[in-house]
Order: sequence, then C-alpha cells, then structure tokens
Amino acid sequence: MARYDRAITVFSPDGHLFQVEYALEAVRKGNAAVGVRGLDAVVLGVEKKSTPKLQDSRSVKKIVSLDNHIALACAGLKADARVLINRARIECQSHRLTVEDPATVEYITRHIAGLQQKYTQSGGVRPFGLSTLIAGFDPYTGTPSLYQTDPSGTFQAWKANATGRNSNSMREFLEKNYKETCGQETVKLAIRALLEVVESGGKNIEIAVMTKEHGLHQLEEAEIDAIVAEIEAEKAAAEAAKKAPATKET
Amino acid sequence: MARYDRAITVFSPDGHLFQVEYALEAVRKGNAAVGVRGLDAVVLGVEKKSTPKLQDSRSVKKIVSLDNHIALACAGLKADARVLINRARIECQSHRLTVEDPATVEYITRHIAGLQQKYTQSGGVRPFGLSTLIAGFDPYTGTPSLYQTDPSGTFQAWKANATGRNSNSMREFLEKNYKETCGQETVKLAIRALLEVVESGGKNIEIAVMTKEHGLHQLEEAEIDAIVAEIEAEKAAAEAAKKAPATKET
Amino acid sequence: MARYDRAITVFSPDGHLFQVEYALEAVRKGNAAVGVRGLDAVVLGVEKKSTPKLQDSRSVKKIVSLDNHIALACAGLKADARVLINRARIECQSHRLTVEDPATVEYITRHIAGLQQKYTQSGGVRPFGLSTLIAGFDPYTGTPSLYQTDPSGTFQAWKANATGRNSNSMREFLEKNYKETCGQETVKLAIRALLEVVESGGKNIEIAVMTKEHGLHQLEEAEIDAIVAEIEAEKAAAEAAKKAPATKET
Amino acid sequence: MARYDRAITVFSPDGHLFQVEYALEAVRKGNAAVGVRGLDAVVLGVEKKSTPKLQDSRSVKKIVSLDNHIALACAGLKADARVLINRARIECQSHRLTVEDPATVEYITRHIAGLQQKYTQSGGVRPFGLSTLIAGFDPYTGTPSLYQTDPSGTFQAWKANATGRNSNSMREFLEKNYKETCGQETVKLAIRALLEVVESGGKNIEIAVMTKEHGLHQLEEAEIDAIVAEIEAEKAAAEAAKKAPATKET
Amino acid sequence: MARYDRAITVFSPDGHLFQVEYALEAVRKGNAAVGVRGLDAVVLGVEKKSTPKLQDSRSVKKIVSLDNHIALACAGLKADARVLINRARIECQSHRLTVEDPATVEYITRHIAGLQQKYTQSGGVRPFGLSTLIAGFDPYTGTPSLYQTDPSGTFQAWKANATGRNSNSMREFLEKNYKETCGQETVKLAIRALLEVVESGGKNIEIAVMTKEHGLHQLEEAEIDAIVAEIEAEKAAAEAAKKAPATKET
Amino acid sequence: MARYDRAITVFSPDGHLFQVEYALEAVRKGNAAVGVRGLDAVVLGVEKKSTPKLQDSRSVKKIVSLDNHIALACAGLKADARVLINRARIECQSHRLTVEDPATVEYITRHIAGLQQKYTQSGGVRPFGLSTLIAGFDPYTGTPSLYQTDPSGTFQAWKANATGRNSNSMREFLEKNYKETCGQETVKLAIRALLEVVESGGKNIEIAVMTKEHGLHQLEEAEIDAIVAEIEAEKAAAEAAKKAPATKET
Amino acid sequence: MARYDRAITVFSPDGHLFQVEYALEAVRKGNAAVGVRGLDAVVLGVEKKSTPKLQDSRSVKKIVSLDNHIALACAGLKADARVLINRARIECQSHRLTVEDPATVEYITRHIAGLQQKYTQSGGVRPFGLSTLIAGFDPYTGTPSLYQTDPSGTFQAWKANATGRNSNSMREFLEKNYKETCGQETVKLAIRALLEVVESGGKNIEIAVMTKEHGLHQLEEAEIDAIVAEIEAEKAAAEAAKKAPATKET
Repeated sequence: MARYDRAITVFSPDGHLFQVEYALEAVRKGNAAVGVRGLDAVVLGVEKKSTPKLQDSRSVKKIVSLDNHIALACAGLKADARVLINRARIECQSHRLTVEDPATVEYITRHIAGLQQKYTQSGGVRPFGLSTLIAGFDPYTGTPSLYQTDPSGTFQAWKANATGRNSNSMREFLEKNYKETCGQETVKLAIRALLEVVESGGKNIEIAVMTKEHGLHQLEEAEIDAIVAEIEAEKAAAEAAKKAPATKET
Repeated sequence: MARYDRAITVFSPDGHLFQVEYALEAVRKGNAAVGVRGLDAVVLGVEKKSTPKLQDSRSVKKIVSLDNHIALACAGLKADARVLINRARIECQSHRLTVEDPATVEYITRHIAGLQQKYTQSGGVRPFGLSTLIAGFDPYTGTPSLYQTDPSGTFQAWKANATGRNSNSMREFLEKNYKETCGQETVKLAIRALLEVVESGGKNIEIAVMTKEHGLHQLEEAEIDAIVAEIEAEKAAAEAAKKAPATKET
Repeated sequence: MARYDRAITVFSPDGHLFQVEYALEAVRKGNAAVGVRGLDAVVLGVEKKSTPKLQDSRSVKKIVSLDNHIALACAGLKADARVLINRARIECQSHRLTVEDPATVEYITRHIAGLQQKYTQSGGVRPFGLSTLIAGFDPYTGTPSLYQTDPSGTFQAWKANATGRNSNSMREFLEKNYKETCGQETVKLAIRALLEVVESGGKNIEIAVMTKEHGLHQLEEAEIDAIVAEIEAEKAAAEAAKKAPATKET
Repeated sequence: MARYDRAITVFSPDGHLFQVEYALEAVRKGNAAVGVRGLDAVVLGVEKKSTPKLQDSRSVKKIVSLDNHIALACAGLKADARVLINRARIECQSHRLTVEDPATVEYITRHIAGLQQKYTQSGGVRPFGLSTLIAGFDPYTGTPSLYQTDPSGTFQAWKANATGRNSNSMREFLEKNYKETCGQETVKLAIRALLEVVESGGKNIEIAVMTKEHGLHQLEEAEIDAIVAEIEAEKAAAEAAKKAPATKET
Repeated sequence: MARYDRAITVFSPDGHLFQVEYALEAVRKGNAAVGVRGLDAVVLGVEKKSTPKLQDSRSVKKIVSLDNHIALACAGLKADARVLINRARIECQSHRLTVEDPATVEYITRHIAGLQQKYTQSGGVRPFGLSTLIAGFDPYTGTPSLYQTDPSGTFQAWKANATGRNSNSMREFLEKNYKETCGQETVKLAIRALLEVVESGGKNIEIAVMTKEHGLHQLEEAEIDAIVAEIEAEKAAAEAAKKAPATKET
Repeated sequence: MARYDRAITVFSPDGHLFQVEYALEAVRKGNAAVGVRGLDAVVLGVEKKSTPKLQDSRSVKKIVSLDNHIALACAGLKADARVLINRARIECQSHRLTVEDPATVEYITRHIAGLQQKYTQSGGVRPFGLSTLIAGFDPYTGTPSLYQTDPSGTFQAWKANATGRNSNSMREFLEKNYKETCGQETVKLAIRALLEVVESGGKNIEIAVMTKEHGLHQLEEAEIDAIVAEIEAEKAAAEAAKKAPATKET
Repeated sequence: MARYDRAITVFSPDGHLFQVEYALEAVRKGNAAVGVRGLDAVVLGVEKKSTPKLQDSRSVKKIVSLDNHIALACAGLKADARVLINRARIECQSHRLTVEDPATVEYITRHIAGLQQKYTQSGGVRPFGLSTLIAGFDPYTGTPSLYQTDPSGTFQAWKANATGRNSNSMREFLEKNYKETCGQETVKLAIRALLEVVESGGKNIEIAVMTKEHGLHQLEEAEIDAIVAEIEAEKAAAEAAKKAPATKET
C-alpha cells in the first residue's frame, strides 16, 4: 500500500487519496479548536500551546475575523493557515467591491473549501494541512452559523464541533451537553469543551465571541479565567450536591 | 500489474486505465444514490450518512439544482462534487447568456462527462472520484430524462439507476420493480430502492422531485417518513395477504 | 521488456511504442464495429452491449454523424470517443466556415488520425483508446468511402472492415463475402458480419446507412429485426437447398 | 547498460543516444523503400504490405509529393510519416509565399532532418520512428537529386539508396548494379532492387517517377506488372544465355 | 519513513513535511542569533564565525536594516538570507511608494513568513534554510517589537528569543534573566545571552541596536569589548560577593 | 557512481557532470578532424567515412562556412552539428544586420560555446554531442585564428589542433611537426596529420582552406590526391635519404 | 545518505544541500586562483594548466575585467565561468545606463552571488561549478576591495584569499605572509602564494593587476618570469643568510 502515498493526486487501488489523509494527521497533531453556535452568538475557542515565557502573548491570535461578520479558527499548520486566511479576506473584500454587499458565511466557506479541494486534485502542490471552523452571521437574515472545512475540501454546517488534537473527546462532550443557549452560556459551553482536553484555564485558552451587533470580540485572559473559575465552582457544587442529598435526607 | 497503476494517464498492458478504476472504488465507497424517471417527474434520492448529532441537518443538500429544470445527485468524494457542480452551474448560466435559451439536460450531461474524461487523459491531475445522476426536463419538448456519468467520463440515459454503496442491490430492485408511474408512485419507488440498502427511514434519506412545473422540490423529513410508513404498511399488508389467502379460502 | 511500457512516448529497444499497443488492447476489448461500402451507400454497424434493462435505449447512439455527408462509428473507450467526435465536428463546421465548402471524408479522417498520432508522441498525455470507422460521400465527386483509424494515428481506406471485439472473425467473413452491392444488400452484408460475433439480432445491433441523398439514416430496431429474420430465412433455405439437391435428383 | 535507454535525451556512458537507436529499429521493421536517381528522372519505390483483400488499394499512397518538383517515400511508423509530410508541405508552400520561389530539394531535406533532430534533443517527446527518401529536381538548375534522412536527423545525398526492411540486401544490389540511366531503365533498376526483398510483383510494389517535365507520376499496377514481366524475361534470357553459349559453341 | 522526505511538498503518513524539518536542521547548524526587546530599543545580536584571519571584518554585516525602522538578523544559509532580505527591502520600498507610508514591522514579518510558506507548498523549489529575527518600531504607535520566522513560514512576536546554533541554551538564559530594560541594559542582556554559547567576546559577536530616534546602530568591536569587560567584571564581583558575605559577617 | 549519470544537469559527489563526459564519448567516436593555422591561411581537414559507393560525394560537406571569413569543421553527431551551424550562421547574419559589421571569429566561437554550455546546465535537454574547430580571419586586423569548442562549452584558441576519432595521435603529430607556414605547406601539414589516422588518401579526406582574400576554398579530390602523392614521395625520399648517406659516404 | 544527493533543490535530513557541496568539488578540481589586496592595487593570479604546446597562449585569459574598475578570476568549470562573466558584464553596462554611474564592486559581487544562489533553490538547473574572486576599486571612494563568491551563492570581502586546487596551502601561506603593501610587493605576494602549489614559474601563472589609475593590467610572461626570478633570488639569499651567520660570526 506504501507506494500509493507518494504521488500527490493519485488514487490508491481501494479509492483512497493518501496525501489528503496524511494532511489530516497534521491536523490531528494541531491545537484543539472548538466552535459552538448559540442563539445570539457563535463562539470559537482554541487551545493555546503553552506559550514560551518570552513570547509576546498579544501576538498572532489564532481566532481571526475574515470580515465584520465572519470569523475563523483553525487546527493544523499555522503557516498554511495564514495563506488560507489571506485569500479568504481578499475574497470578502472583493465580494463587497464587485457585488456591493457582504459575502454570506456559506459563500466564504465554499470559497475556502474550494481552495482546499483544488490542492488535492492538481499536481505540483500538497494539500493544506488544515481544518477550519468558520463562524458568522448571515448579513441578510441575521442567523448565526458555524461551518467546518477539512483538508479534502469538504465542509458542513454544525451546531457545535471540534477539530485538532483530541477532537473526539471534545465532540463527545459537546454531543452530550449541547443546548441552544444565549450569551454567556454559549461561551461557557465552548470553554467546558476545551477544558476536556486542555489542562489549566485561561492561560492556555483563546476564546472569541461573534455577535450580530458587535462582530468578533476576543476575550481577555482575565475574563476567561473568571469563567473557568465559575465552571469549576459549579462543578464542585454539583459534586457536593451529589454527595449532599444523602445527608440532607437524613 | 501493480506498476501500471501509479501513473495517471497510462494504459496497462491489457488496456486498462487503473486510475479511473480506482476512482470508481471511491465512488463505490460513497453514499448510495438513486434516480427514477416517472411520466411527470424525475426523482433523485440519496443516502445521508448518519449525521453526527450536532451537524446542522439543513446544511449542504446532496441533491442540488444546476438550473431551473436540471438537478444532480452524486456518489463519491464530496469536495470533488462541488467542483463539478460549480462548473456545471456556470455552464448553465453561460448557455443562457450566449444562446439566450436554457441548456438541455443532455447538453449539460455531456459537459459534465467531458470534464470527467479530460481528467483521465491529461497529466498532472487525477480523475474525479465521482459518479453523477442528472435529472431534468427538456426545456423545449418537456420530456423528462435521467442520465448517469462516471469517473471515466462515459454517460448513458436511464429510466432508473443507482450508484454508490451497494448500487448493485438497488439496480436489481429497480429492474424488478420499475414501472413508468406518475407523481407519488415515482417517489415511492425511489425510496423503496434506497431502503434496500439504507437502514432506517427518513432520517437517513434525502429525496428531491424534479417536475416540469415546479422545478426541484426537496422533500421534508416528515414527508419522507410518511411515505416510508406507507411503504412499510403496504409491505406488511402484502405479507399478511400472502399468509391470509390460505385462511380465507378455508 | 516490462520497463519500456511505463513511459508514454518512448521506444522499446526493439522499436515498439508500448502505450500505443496497450491502447489497441482497449480497442480489442471494445464493442464490435463494422463498415461496408456499397455502390450507393456506406453502412456502419456496431454491437450494442446488452443494454441494462432500465437504460434508455434511445440514448447515446454509437454511430454519429460528423457532418451531413460523414458518419463515424468506433470501438474502444466511449469517453475518449466523445472527445474525438467533438473535435471532428468542430473541424467540419470550421472547414465550412473558412473554406466555404464541406470537408471531404479523407480530410476529416486525416484530421482525426492526426489528433490520434499527436497523443502518441508528446509527453503528458496517453493515446486515445479508440479505433474509428469513418463513412461518407465525397461532397464534390459523390463517391462513397470508408476509412479506419487506430490509436497509433494510422488510417486506410477500405471496401469493408471491422474493429473492436472479435474483429478478426468479422474481417474474415467480409473478405469471403464482400461484393459491391446496392441499397439493402449492403446493409444485409454489414448485419451478417456482425452476426458472426454478436448473439441475438436487432436488440444488440445498431445500424446506420449513409447515402448521398439522405445523409445518415439510423435503422429502427424493427427494421433490423426484419433483416435479421430475412438473413436467417435465407440461411435456412440455403441449408435446406444444400440437403435438398440430393433428394431432388432422386 | 539497460538503464540508459529509458530517458529520451540522455547519453549513455559510451556516448550513445539509445532512443534514436530504438527508433531505427522501428524503421528496420517498416516497409522496404528504395530510391534511384537517373539522368532525367528520380524513381522512388516502396514495398506495399500485402494489402488486406478489402483495403482500398487507391488509398494512402506511400510515395507522396511535397511540392511540384519534390517527392518523398518513407519507412517506419506511418502515423509519424504523415506529421513530417504535412510539415514539409507547409514549409514548401510557405517558402513559395515568403521567398516567392520554390524551395530546393536540399532545403526541404534540411527542414525535415532538422525536425527529426529536434525530437532527439529536447525532453517530453520521442524521436520520429522514420527514415525518409526525398527525390526531386532543383527548380533552378534542373538537376535531379535523391536524399535520405533518418531518426537521428542526419541526411545525405545518394545516387541510389534503400531503407526499411532488408535495406542491406537492396543496397548491396544497388551498389552492384547502379548505372546512371535514363527513363525506363531507372524505373527498372528500382523495381529490381525491391524484388530482391519483396516477393511477388506489381501487387506488392508502389513506384513513382519524378521528372523535371511532369513532376511526380505514380505507376499503375499494370505498368509495374509489365516491367516485372520484362525483368523476369530478361533474367530468364540471361540465364539461358549463360547455359546457351556452351551449346552455341558446339 | 525514509521515503517521504525526498519529495518537497508531500506529507508523510504521520503528517510531517520532512523538507521543512530538514531545513530547520540547516538553521540549527547556522550561527547563533539573539533578539531582545527593551522599552526604548530592540537589540539584535549574532555570533560571528571565527573570521578567517584575512577576511575583511567590515564586510557583510549579518544584521541588516530593511527600512529605517526595521532590522533583521538571521541564522541558516547565508545565500538564502540575501534573497529574503532583498525581497523584504523591495517590499518596504514598494509599500512606501504605493501606500505612501512606511510598512509596520508585523506587515513585513508577514511578508517574509509568507514567502517562506510558499516555498514549502509548491513543487520545484526547496524551503528557505533560514530563521529570521525581525526587530523594529511601529512607525505609527512607536512601540518596539521583535518577531521570529522559521522555514515553515510560521512567525511569532517575542520579548526576547534566540535561534541558530545552541539556541536552546540562549533561550533558557533569556527566560531566566529577561527584564524590560532601557538603553544599555538591553544590549547587555543580548550580549550575555550570546556569551552563553559564543566563546570570546567582541571579536565573535555582532550587535546592532534599533531605536526609534536613530534607527539601526551597529556597535563597534571596541564598544562590544567594553560591554563584555563590564559583564565579566560584574560577574566576577557577583562571584566575589557570593564568597565575601561569609568573610564579611565574620 | 553509476547513479549520478542519469540526470542531465546534476553533479556527481566528486564534482563531475557525467552527461557532458558521455557526450565527449560521442565526439571520440566521430570522424577525425584537424585544424592548422598558417600565416596566410587556416586549413581545416576532416576524415570522410568511407562513403558508401552510391552516396553522392558532393553532398553535405563536413567543412562549412559560417560567414565569408569564418569556417567550421566538427566531430560528433552530424545532426547536432547542423543545429549549431544554423544557429551560428544566423548569428553571423544578425551581427552584420544589427552591428553593421561582420562578427569576429572569437565572437562567433563564444556564441557557439555559449549554446553548448546552456545545454549542460538547464533541465530537459541533453548536451550537444559535438566538438567544433572554427577557423577564420579577423575582419578588422586580418589575423588568422583557429578555435576549438567542446560539449561542456569550453573553447580555446590553437595554432593547430585535432578532435574526434584518434585525436591524440593527430595532436601528437602536430605538436612534433607544427611550424608557422604559408600557403601549400599549411595544407600539407593538415593532410599529414590526418594521414596519421586515416588510411588511404584523398578519397577519405576533406580539406578546406580559409584565406583572407578568397574566403573558404574546398579542395577537389584530385588536388588532395596530388598533395598526398607529394607527401608520400617526400616521405620515400626522406627514408631513402636516411639509408643513402651511408652509401654516399662510401 | 546517498539518496539525498540526486535531487537538485532538496535538503538532506541533516540539513545539507548536496548538489552545492558537489559543485564545490568541481571547484576544488579547478585551477588554483589567488587574490591579494594591496594599498594601491588588487592583484589576481591564477594557475594556468600546462598549456598544450600548440594552444594559442594569448587566448582566453582567465582573469577578465567586468568593467573599467572591476576584474574577476575564477576556479571551476570554465564554460560556467563564461556565463557568469557575461551576465556580470551586462549588469555593469546596464548599471551605467540606468543609474548613469558605475556599479560598485560590492554591487556586482552581490549580483554574481545572487545568480549563484538562484541556481541552488529552483528546480531544473544545477548550481554553477564555480568560485570567483572579484577585485576592484570603489568608483566613489577609491578604496580597493577583494571579494570571493562560491557555488552556494555566499560571498565575503577579503584582504587576500585563494580558491581552486590546493587553496588551503595558499590560504595558509597568505595568512602567514600577508602585509598591506604597495605596487610590486603586492604582485610578489600573489605570485609567491601561487608558487606554493604551482610548479614552474611564469609559464604556468597568469597575473593581472587592478589599479585605480590604469584599470586592469595583464602581466607579460616575461614580467612574471622576472618576478619569479627575483623571488627565487631572495629565497636563496635568505637561505644563504640562514647558514651564513654561523660563518660570519666566526
């Protein structure tokens, strides 16, 4: 089977495109990322690798806005990410210029996924080692949406989803706990999902909230820490409650 | 034989194009899809992979319209599908603009199959991992038609056909049961064919009906569930009937 | 020897172009096809693969006209055929536009064979997996002609010839039985040749007659069946006659 | 040594270009061809492969004229030949248009050999599998000439020469028997040379005579048969003469 | 695993891009380089290979300015460095011409990292064997910044960082000793970091200070030697102090 | 070591370009060629392969003029030679047109060697299998000169030199016997050098004399034979003289 | 390790570019070359391979001027050298035309090194097998300078340096003996360095002196011989002096 994985754009005898599957491995090695769609907000969260002590923590946010109403987080090769993000931003501007209206979230998702597909079918390039989570509000209907794309160039809409390192644990958590919520509750769910695989609080987490009114809002480390504390308090209370009833009843 | 399958556009000593055959394997791993031509409607149906719980079920329909009077369903690599669909839609628009008349179903089928062939003969690209079912009404004569294309770039017109996972079982079923029917009966046949390989009802099935008057109509899950129920009731009745006569006669 | 067959445009030490020979294998696996030149008509006939029950039998004729006075049948990869046919049709139109006169049959044959040769000498493409039979009438002299081209890009004029599956048996039959005939007799000869390798009658045979006056005429299945019946009657009579004389003489 | 013959434009350690040598093998497998320069005519002759019974014998002459005063015969891949012939004809026309005078035989020979060389030095193409014999009259001085080119792109002028299958036997014959002759005698020599390697007479031989006054004249099969008969009569007479003297003297 | 590292733009089965990782090895073999961001200056320092005796020590500074307010130091292949530096300088000029304002440090960092990424995804080129440290002042806000890029095309902002030979030791030193300092203190920290891996003083060290007011200032060898002496004096004093207290207390 | 010789433009570990060295092998297999610079003439001489009996001996001189005052002889692949010669002639014409003065011998030598070098450094082509001897007179100073180029693209000026088959023997002979001579003596030296490796006289030798006044003059076979006879007479006389003295003294 | 050296632009796992290193081998096999910067002159010297007896010793100087004030000597493939020299000369002219001022020595060194780097990073070409020594005077400040470039595209300024065959011995000699000298003394040092590795005097040495006033001056063989004699006399005197003192003291 080994020999089908060297050429970029070639099928293996059982119909696989190995380069695409290997690119997914690069994604699986990337930082954990999560997206949660609420009623009035879409929250994106990513794990920050324990920043070296001297790295400028303000620098290079992993959650970026593509347009006023669209944001993107991703898992995989960071340098590849910048290329995709640049192209997506240019497409957003160009859409505004030519159509004189902002692009919809789905339009830009299609555009990104289309670029990803192209790099899996033509010779002389490798696929993007990248999965993206795209969050935004429809500029016409105002409905929130969350999309995910992967190295093969496929995409789907999600209520909530995760990618990157340990994405399975996060996805299971989200499936168990997802509710359509408002405001702070949506943020809390995203953080709780990340805490499944990320160790200690706000320092290693980056959270951004996209709302119809205010566009993308990046949470401060302090804000995240506060919510993490709240989550832990609730958890402690819940566990206490679990033990308590026995005593209460007595 | 192994060594003839690595280069894209090369014949093997016995006249095979292996890359095309491997692309067919990708199709055979794809979702089941079915098309049935009735007298007043052409019905397309596809299996939906058990959607992850949080995936937005409204998102990315697998049956799409290329023009008012032409729709397409396909089996294989989803990202490849989008590329073909985009190109076909552009061709439809461009045909309307240059010829000032809509394209016929056969015209657009030829266009899609032509693209697929091109990717099997030139270097530097791989074939599309995709079979398509194209349904529509001739904009001039009003006759319904159903076409199928495959990765090699061949196409044929069909009364009814299936592709993707377990397409053989569906095709056998269709050959045994096909009749030229009207309206609901055509839909029922398509669903019955899919139920041969898809497990539980409306949740895992997507159905769209193309009619001359209304263009493409995507069925709601509830509508599909109703028909599935009807089908099961009939089946039960038939089986009961099979056993009953013996008792009746007595 | 194996190692000379992977590269497309390379000679083997004994002067072979293996890719061209492998493309011929694809032709030899294709449907049988036959062409017979009569005095007032050129007949093309092809074997139809036992059409799946639900395939639309009207669809995709294997014998197509390139211009009013030129028709083509072929054996090999169907998707490749469409490419060649399209290019040939465009050349016919373009000839009419630029020269303001229809192209001769030889002109268009040279054009097709030239395309086929080109795909055997340049890198990055594979040869066409296709042999063609080209029938037509000279638009100036009104003489009928029949040509054959093959994957190497060679072509010859023929009184009658066959290609595809079992072409040797058909060619032997034609060599034994060919006479320059008129009208129906030419059709009969073409059908008799096909019946050497095709099993049951009109269902599996496609016949088209090119005449100076009416251009290409595709025979209906019923027409073919009638001729097949006639042929069988004659054969039976002939066999009876073979046995009869003995009795007669007595 | 085997590994130096796969790449097209690469020298082997001992200075060979194997692809060119393999292309010569394709020539050596081709039909025999012969050229004889007389005082008032240059004769080209080629072996015709035993034409299948139904092939149209008028079709595709192997000896073609490039211009009024230049003709070409060749041995090797027929489809390659057409490409070279087309290019040479276009060059002849283009020469007449730009220089307003016909091209000389040497000019066009250089052009053909130049094309052949080009295909031995650049990547992505294979050499032409073709040797050509070019016959003609200088449009200015009126002197006859005969050239030969081969796959490497070399060419020389000859009084008489042969190429293709068994060219050595023919060349030896010509070396023994060549005289500068006029008219019919030149034709006879060409035919006698071909008869060294071709079995039976006019049916398998194609002869064309290039003269200053009439350009290229293709001999009819009957004409060839007559000369073949004459040759055989002479040979019989000669052999009789050989035996006769003894008797005569007595 | 060996076989995934030969092609430039291909993933290995576990999602690695080996060429990028090998380019990092070239960086790790390069000269040590260090960058320290102070409050009023950003200091870049690089190890100079023990210059051959006759090499002109004035020649080819390893720390260069890209624009008045941006400087760059790098580790890896020197010839590659020049290419990147040229392109960055042209981009700076071009930015001034088209936007009529100087580029920000981040803008030019993105540009450099973008070039580096491009050479990891397209065929026919190898990655740059180069990590860069980019120092500068924002032309609008006047804040100092320090960035690092690597062969994969990723970049981050840093308070202080090191690359090249033994960069780990330097980075550990910086993490232990970094304070936001002013003027001379920042220079001293950079030199102390380099002295962790470079042997003897000013001769083997190149230091340049970027300030808002004066742009890039390259330190003379004497200046460096003075600071090295100062550092050593302090160190000696500190060590003396360590031993002294015991005696003092007595 | 074997594996470094397949790619065209690649160095072997010990710094060799094998393709260039293999091209030199092709030169060493080519005809012997010699050049001798006299005071008033430069003589070029080449071995003619024993011309097949029927080859037109006038045809395709191996010594050609590039311009009125420059001539070229070469050893190696004849078809390659024509390409280089054509390009050199065009450059000569083009130089006259653009600069309005003839090119110098060195200018055109540089041009030819430059073309040869180019084919050793870029991909997709093989080196020219060719060494050239270029003879001429400076159009301004009137001094004679002789240059040699080889497949690597190097060139030098020579008083006399040889290339091709057995060039070492000829070069040794020339080194022993070269004197700056006038007119006929220069021709004689060239012929004597060739006779070291070529068997019998004028038939197998081609000689051309370039003089300032008359440009290139090709010697007739008779002229060469006369000189060969003269040379042999002298040699006989010399040998006789060697033996004679002894007798004389007595 | 062997397998990383075949592809041109690929890193080996430990960060090497083997093709560049192999090109250096070609340099190490080339003629010795030396450059010495004096106070009022820069001297370039190269070893001349024992010129074949008949080679025109005036021909093809190995030390060439690029502009009035810049000269170049090199070691490695001579044909490659010509390409680089031509390009550098054109750049000098073009600089004068566009900037209306002569290029500095550093500018042209960068240009040459830049070309060399380009051939190490892009596919389809091999590196230049060439190290260069570039000598000249700054057209504005009048200061002399000496640069060296190598196949990787790196360059440095030198007081004195050597390259090619046995460059290490020469470099050691230079390091031991270099002083900033004037006029003849600089020439003497260059010759003494070459004599470390070249056998017998002026015949095998080429020397050129670049001065601000007179540009490049090529020394005659006689001039070199005179200096060689002087050097040997001094050496003898020195050795005599070494032995003498003992006797003197007595």
